[in-house]
Amino acid sequence: MEFTATTIAQLINGTVDGNPQATVSTFAKIEEGHPGAISFLANPKYTHYIYQTHSSVVLVSNDFVAEHPISATLIRVANPYEAVSELMTIAQRMMAQAPSGIEQPCYVSPTATLGKDVYVGAFAYIGDGAVLEEGAKIYPHCYVGRGVKIGAGSILYSGVKVYDGCKIGNRCILHSGAVIGADGFGFAPTADGSYNKIPQMGIVEIEDDVEIGANTTIDRATMGATHIGHGTKLDNLIQIAHNVQLGHDNVFAAQTGVAGSTKIGSNCVFAGQVGFAGHITVGDRVTIGAQSGVPNNVPDGVTLMGYPAIKSSDFLRQTACMRRLRSLFDDVDQLKKEIKH
Amino acid sequence: MEFTATTIAQLINGTVDGNPQATVSTFAKIEEGHPGAISFLANPKYTHYIYQTHSSVVLVSNDFVAEHPISATLIRVANPYEAVSELMTIAQRMMAQAPSGIEQPCYVSPTATLGKDVYVGAFAYIGDGAVLEEGAKIYPHCYVGRGVKIGAGSILYSGVKVYDGCKIGNRCILHSGAVIGADGFGFAPTADGSYNKIPQMGIVEIEDDVEIGANTTIDRATMGATHIGHGTKLDNLIQIAHNVQLGHDNVFAAQTGVAGSTKIGSNCVFAGQVGFAGHITVGDRVTIGAQSGVPNNVPDGVTLMGYPAIKSSDFLRQTACMRRLRSLFDDVDQLKKEIKH
Amino acid sequence: MEFTATTIAQLINGTVDGNPQATVSTFAKIEEGHPGAISFLANPKYTHYIYQTHSSVVLVSNDFVAEHPISATLIRVANPYEAVSELMTIAQRMMAQAPSGIEQPCYVSPTATLGKDVYVGAFAYIGDGAVLEEGAKIYPHCYVGRGVKIGAGSILYSGVKVYDGCKIGNRCILHSGAVIGADGFGFAPTADGSYNKIPQMGIVEIEDDVEIGANTTIDRATMGATHIGHGTKLDNLIQIAHNVQLGHDNVFAAQTGVAGSTKIGSNCVFAGQVGFAGHITVGDRVTIGAQSGVPNNVPDGVTLMGYPAIKSSDFLRQTACMRRLRSLFDDVDQLKKEIKH
Repeated sequence: MEFTATTIAQLINGTVDGNPQATVSTFAKIEEGHPGAISFLANPKYTHYIYQTHSSVVLVSNDFVAEHPISATLIRVANPYEAVSELMTIAQRMMAQAPSGIEQPCYVSPTATLGKDVYVGAFAYIGDGAVLEEGAKIYPHCYVGRGVKIGAGSILYSGVKVYDGCKIGNRCILHSGAVIGADGFGFAPTADGSYNKIPQMGIVEIEDDVEIGANTTIDRATMGATHIGHGTKLDNLIQIAHNVQLGHDNVFAAQTGVAGSTKIGSNCVFAGQVGFAGHITVGDRVTIGAQSGVPNNVPDGVTLMGYPAIKSSDFLRQTACMRRLRSLFDDVDQLKKEIKH
Repeated sequence: MEFTATTIAQLINGTVDGNPQATVSTFAKIEEGHPGAISFLANPKYTHYIYQTHSSVVLVSNDFVAEHPISATLIRVANPYEAVSELMTIAQRMMAQAPSGIEQPCYVSPTATLGKDVYVGAFAYIGDGAVLEEGAKIYPHCYVGRGVKIGAGSILYSGVKVYDGCKIGNRCILHSGAVIGADGFGFAPTADGSYNKIPQMGIVEIEDDVEIGANTTIDRATMGATHIGHGTKLDNLIQIAHNVQLGHDNVFAAQTGVAGSTKIGSNCVFAGQVGFAGHITVGDRVTIGAQSGVPNNVPDGVTLMGYPAIKSSDFLRQTACMRRLRSLFDDVDQLKKEIKH
Repeated sequence: MEFTATTIAQLINGTVDGNPQATVSTFAKIEEGHPGAISFLANPKYTHYIYQTHSSVVLVSNDFVAEHPISATLIRVANPYEAVSELMTIAQRMMAQAPSGIEQPCYVSPTATLGKDVYVGAFAYIGDGAVLEEGAKIYPHCYVGRGVKIGAGSILYSGVKVYDGCKIGNRCILHSGAVIGADGFGFAPTADGSYNKIPQMGIVEIEDDVEIGANTTIDRATMGATHIGHGTKLDNLIQIAHNVQLGHDNVFAAQTGVAGSTKIGSNCVFAGQVGFAGHITVGDRVTIGAQSGVPNNVPDGVTLMGYPAIKSSDFLRQTACMRRLRSLFDDVDQLKKEIKH
């Protein structure tokens, strides 16, 4: 499918600056532009590419001022990043060949309930009493355990595993290899140094509009539910331990881990490889830098960093001090000598 | 199923304090209690909940002294945490609908040997010469390679992969996505900067009563065996590299990694996201704090923390110093001025 | 199969020192040697084992000088580590029972193209328009999405997932649980604090001779391609985010993560659990120590360590200073007192 600059400008409420008949059929990054592609310029670091790009059309901000000639047709919009995202959403919808129907062979328990327009891929396993609501898409090799509920419009990509009894909300996306509801890591030490397994009888409960990354693991609760609030987005390879409670609209980058029974608020942003101790409470609107370790409760609204995590401004100051530490030792040696004289 | 307080007290050797006819049919955390549920109080931080809980029965310690009226019936026991764990184990056994038999379609090599009462789920793959001992349960989508042995009573949840030749002991539990026996990460650099793969001809050998978390990976040895001692429990997303030797009854929290050929003793406790260098030896009864990095050998019985890991008492002192570092610089500047005068 | 010392020496261009008729049929580590096994001595730390080993044959360096009697037959070579690797490669080729053919049941789209000598395991899923080139081996439970290309001679072990449109080169090895092409983690915040998903329309493109470890995840690009250069080796549980560009012949140890849009050069060596910030550029021949955090651009050829990562020599000096920090505070206190006097 091809679109003219004029059509695109109408779709995203922009104005054309250049040839309104320029046509595009695909997206490209501005630095990899080619004829027939549309690109965008949002990050000022990339501004110099606009003068060289071979893309036919580039989305720019309304206030962009060219300092050199540009061969591409521009479409000016309020927010080029949002605009390209909108365009991609439209394009994806038009191109989508969403799978549907029941592929064979698959295993669907006679006591499972399948809503309208569900997709069950080949080799998927739908256990006793499981419920797939309208439009749910279960790709090949997924395991949907006994009594599991998958909400309307949710997608489980190939190889997602959902243990017995867990509940997934509507419009959730679970990527390949995500494991929902494995046993929490609970063991009681015995007198001889070995461990007894503590049964993990709870579930995992995921609200609407949650996205779970590839190979992320969310353990079931010992009793009650490990809970993921609506709109929360978890990246790949994240560990959420048993009985953790996450609020809504959080964003966790990859390889972060949350230990057991910790409660995290809403609207938080965590970078990658962060670790949270167990049994702590983290507030709302908290930001945490990459690789930080959070041992204690965190109030609302702060930005932390480091190991153990402290206010990020303190961390930066500490790091600067560290770089000068060698010279501090020298200064003190010098002072000692001077005093002795 | 419902149980009276009297029956429960008998099961766990407790004494009833309140209505012996109070009945319960489920478990709940004390802060989420509701009529018909049994809760427990082990952590003093939660004591205040006992005066508000709606649970019908609460397990408490023999020496618990109420400071306000309590509506729940109490059952007094020596150790409430152990008691609730025992009760859950009993309940789980009674409720269990353990899968059994051979679900179709699955793939079982004609040269594989299946013991009594094994379960092979749909879409499971059992390779040539593999042995599933009595009562082993192989959930859907598991891959059991050529010549693999799965010991009696072991459970492989959906999607576990065991490469050719690996040996799993009795009563082990492997959670979804665990990968046992992938090639160790061994490459020999060549003159032109590329790498030649070093064949990984060994296996992974897991003793009895081991639990392996979801998406944890244990690589096969270059030669010989990567070894996991009996009773060791590994949480989710852990990496155990080739030729690593782990002793018995260790507990590793999530996202920890052990590099190649390292030997770790027994009865160790490691928190999450810890890293061990390769080719080192770690003693018995070692405790390591979260996110620590262990570059060198570790003697028996110590508690380490930090990056690089040091004695945890030293780490805490170091961290305290760090917080005062800014002021130390100021002090030294002040001293310099004073001396100049 | 048995081999004499003479035959082995011919295979690897070595010279026999001892009984040329000594026969071996397996490999063993020198410290676990037994009759009939061949071992090697490369690391001087293991030299003492050569005087005790029960292995029948040991590969040693040409310049090895025995200080005590040795019962094993020696084969002297230029590089014992390379020699044993060569031997193992030969042995593996002779022993290999490489799977081939199409196992049933599997799912192969009528529009997929299968080259000569491909293996498709039971329960594998080959989507519409996918291409498996000559000799590709797709183990059970793999998912090969729509339009995916798997190059000649590449191996996907059980449970690898490759999303629609991704391209895998020749002679690649992907271990179980690797997920290629899941959506990049891209979300645009909205005014009400929730997030809109940014469509991820690009692909993952993996060049020839790449090895990807178990449960490693490589996300598809937002537009364009996430790119892995030829000969690069990624260990287990690694995260490669959307639009990352990796050069050729890199080696990344387990649990390392690279955030979005970062470009990494060639011939780099990264230890385990390292993290890279997004949108940075890392040069060629860079070495990074375990658990380091890399927040900024890195020039060619440097060795970094720490959090945040600095030159490893500076890191070691800093760590040494840290250990003496307590005493520096004491010194300064003492100086203050002396000055007051």
